[in-house]
Amino acid sequence: LIAGRSEDIATVMQPLYSSDVGDVLESLDADERLLLVRLLGENFDYSALTEVDESIRVELMEELPNAEIARGMAGLDNDDAVFILEDMEQVDRDEVLAKLPTFERLSLKRSLDFPEDSAGRRMLTDFIAIPPFWTVGQTIDYLRREVDLPDEFYQIYVVDASYSVLGTIPLDKFIRAPRTTSIESMMNTNLVLVDANEDQEEAARDFERYDLVEIGVVDESNRLVGVLTIDDIVDVIHEEADEDIKLLAGVGDEDISDSTADTVRSRVPWLIVNLFSAVMVSMVIGLFNATIEQMVALAVLMPIVASMGGNAGTQTMTVTVRALSMRELDGRRLRRLITREMVVGLFNGVIFAVLIGLVTWLRFNNLQLGGVIGLAMVINMAVAGTAGILIPLTLDKFKADPAIASSVFVTTVTDVVGFFAFLGIAGLWFGLF
Amino acid sequence: LIAGRSEDIATVMQPLYSSDVGDVLESLDADERLLLVRLLGENFDYSALTEVDESIRVELMEELPNAEIARGMAGLDNDDAVFILEDMEQVDRDEVLAKLPTFERLSLKRSLDFPEDSAGRRMLTDFIAIPPFWTVGQTIDYLRREVDLPDEFYQIYVVDASYSVLGTIPLDKFIRAPRTTSIESMMNTNLVLVDANEDQEEAARDFERYDLVEIGVVDESNRLVGVLTIDDIVDVIHEEADEDIKLLAGVGDEDISDSTADTVRSRVPWLIVNLFSAVMVSMVIGLFNATIEQMVALAVLMPIVASMGGNAGTQTMTVTVRALSMRELDGRRLRRLITREMVVGLFNGVIFAVLIGLVTWLRFNNLQLGGVIGLAMVINMAVAGTAGILIPLTLDKFKADPAIASSVFVTTVTDVVGFFAFLGIAGLWFGLF
Repeated sequence: LIAGRSEDIATVMQPLYSSDVGDVLESLDADERLLLVRLLGENFDYSALTEVDESIRVELMEELPNAEIARGMAGLDNDDAVFILEDMEQVDRDEVLAKLPTFERLSLKRSLDFPEDSAGRRMLTDFIAIPPFWTVGQTIDYLRREVDLPDEFYQIYVVDASYSVLGTIPLDKFIRAPRTTSIESMMNTNLVLVDANEDQEEAARDFERYDLVEIGVVDESNRLVGVLTIDDIVDVIHEEADEDIKLLAGVGDEDISDSTADTVRSRVPWLIVNLFSAVMVSMVIGLFNATIEQMVALAVLMPIVASMGGNAGTQTMTVTVRALSMRELDGRRLRRLITREMVVGLFNGVIFAVLIGLVTWLRFNNLQLGGVIGLAMVINMAVAGTAGILIPLTLDKFKADPAIASSVFVTTVTDVVGFFAFLGIAGLWFGLF
Repeated sequence: LIAGRSEDIATVMQPLYSSDVGDVLESLDADERLLLVRLLGENFDYSALTEVDESIRVELMEELPNAEIARGMAGLDNDDAVFILEDMEQVDRDEVLAKLPTFERLSLKRSLDFPEDSAGRRMLTDFIAIPPFWTVGQTIDYLRREVDLPDEFYQIYVVDASYSVLGTIPLDKFIRAPRTTSIESMMNTNLVLVDANEDQEEAARDFERYDLVEIGVVDESNRLVGVLTIDDIVDVIHEEADEDIKLLAGVGDEDISDSTADTVRSRVPWLIVNLFSAVMVSMVIGLFNATIEQMVALAVLMPIVASMGGNAGTQTMTVTVRALSMRELDGRRLRRLITREMVVGLFNGVIFAVLIGLVTWLRFNNLQLGGVIGLAMVINMAVAGTAGILIPLTLDKFKADPAIASSVFVTTVTDVVGFFAFLGIAGLWFGLF
């Protein structure tokens, strides 16, 4: 198909939604992608680029001439354009901006001046703002008359002369009001607004909390500068959860379309940290060299204690990390959670101490060895519960993202304690030191 | 405060959003919660129950008399009422339903007849449906006149006599059209609808894909029976990601407000599976009893190989599980991902083989031992990459949720291969069998 028949391709692609075009791009190889965009030329809708993985977007943008990109940007909503431009190199971005009409250029520049991942970066700068002294009828006439309105809007903003928000009117209420109703009398003054510098994840929480579909964005001087709509926020929510999962597993900000080299680069740092941890653990075992030499069964059994502790610790840690990232923990709930996790750790410790003690006794026909491994298990499971909750909390206190580093700390603790407790107790018990 | 001063409490709670009331409930203890709801009586807004953890909701519902619950349900949107009722025991639920007015009862019953987690369960049964032969003016007059309309709506549905959807009109387009415009001429016929029996996660994907805020729900005979709105879908998206994180860590469907007993119950099954796996791994080590006896350094080093493999496997697995659950893998992208992961596994294997080989050589002053551990590392990392992608894919093929079982399979494979390869190669190399 990609043999140059551009009209055919344009005809096929025309009716597709931008997310479908994004899908097509993602399933193609790098050179086919470029060819497709080139063949489509003016028919290529740049909003499809907001629907593909970052690596694909960056790659395509590097290949395409800046003049062509500028043409594409001009046809986009400003939030989509910002989303695409923010990944570009500074020089290329400036070149593209320079080629745009003044009004678009200024509006994009202002959005790009806000910090990365802020509400200001994601906002649409088009919105409906009316004065409080209008009536519903006047407003409807204005909406019908005015050509240059946003593509989509869910509420109307009532502002004063300095663009300070006085109230909002959702469209469904507005449409049901008689023409003579005054705007001031019907507007909702229970305002939820976000600061343009605020993190988009904070804004997402407001959307969820108050079941909103649109929210006004204000600048430092409280002027309405844009609006956030729910479709962008859905993406934010998705990314946020995705980030937690990936960070917990020690995978960086990685997509399935990343190249092999990028993937290696994103994973090696975490594996290096884990190597340090593993070597440290192995040094702990090294302390018990002589003990193991006298009783090889210990080497055979020791990974069980460590592995069970690691798993129990990870369970507690995951629950804690999620609760932290969803801001579910106030003082009271936190104290309840800590108590619960310690009790659960101790309880599970006893359950699995009995189980593994029995298995060991039967397998090695050695009741005492069963007792030793059981005791080590109780200790390690209790420690696992405690570490699983205290490590993420401590990282969070020091403003580190608990999702990044908790895993390695928790498993290091459970490995060290697991091996040390088991080998140490065995050494003392059987007098092997 | 909770000393019986119900008017004061009612005054304080009155202006709060339901999510704020939910927060208050979550931070109280069980008996305080019940007391609060009782004191508030008629002033308690049951929609707050949709904002609390399931365990709290179930507990409260069990304590409250069914007559009181029925009174609370009558004031709710039907999607919120369904959400609360679906967690109740069948007998209690029937009793509550029996106490409701006929119309509400039938509408709730119909929603509850749809499968759990289906679009039918989450839908609002109130919507605006108009015939195609009306004009914009007629529709506006109808909307202004009619009292019994949904609280919130974002689009208008155009239906024929049998309630089959002909088109939709978003409110922002509608409001800008002149009164004389015919509905038929302006409606959007590019329809996105979901089946009431469809899983809510599928519906969520449609919302994301097409950036929707509202979607019509149709039954088997293609009649419009309700609408899904974005605020419910945001919750679905959140839950879905949350579920993946928790399943990967071996934590069931667990909330931070679950009791200690529920928590133990949710975690023990996974720990038992892990115990089986750990005992099996320990039996593999047991095969090399004699080898370890002759060279204790092997026991000291062996956890490093297993731990690195486990981590690398988990990285690959996590990326794969997420890609599967977000339906990002078609045939072509899948093949690319498999190739990439195998190459990454091999590559990381070589990097870390060299590192650990050097460390071992220096620590034990034994170049050959360094070579052995390096070789085992390459093998285990390559296997980890392969297992990390093939295990979730296989589970997915057999219609199992890869998030549930992948972790334990992957770490079992990397543990077994890690210990076996290291001890086996060492045994052969140093002639210790």
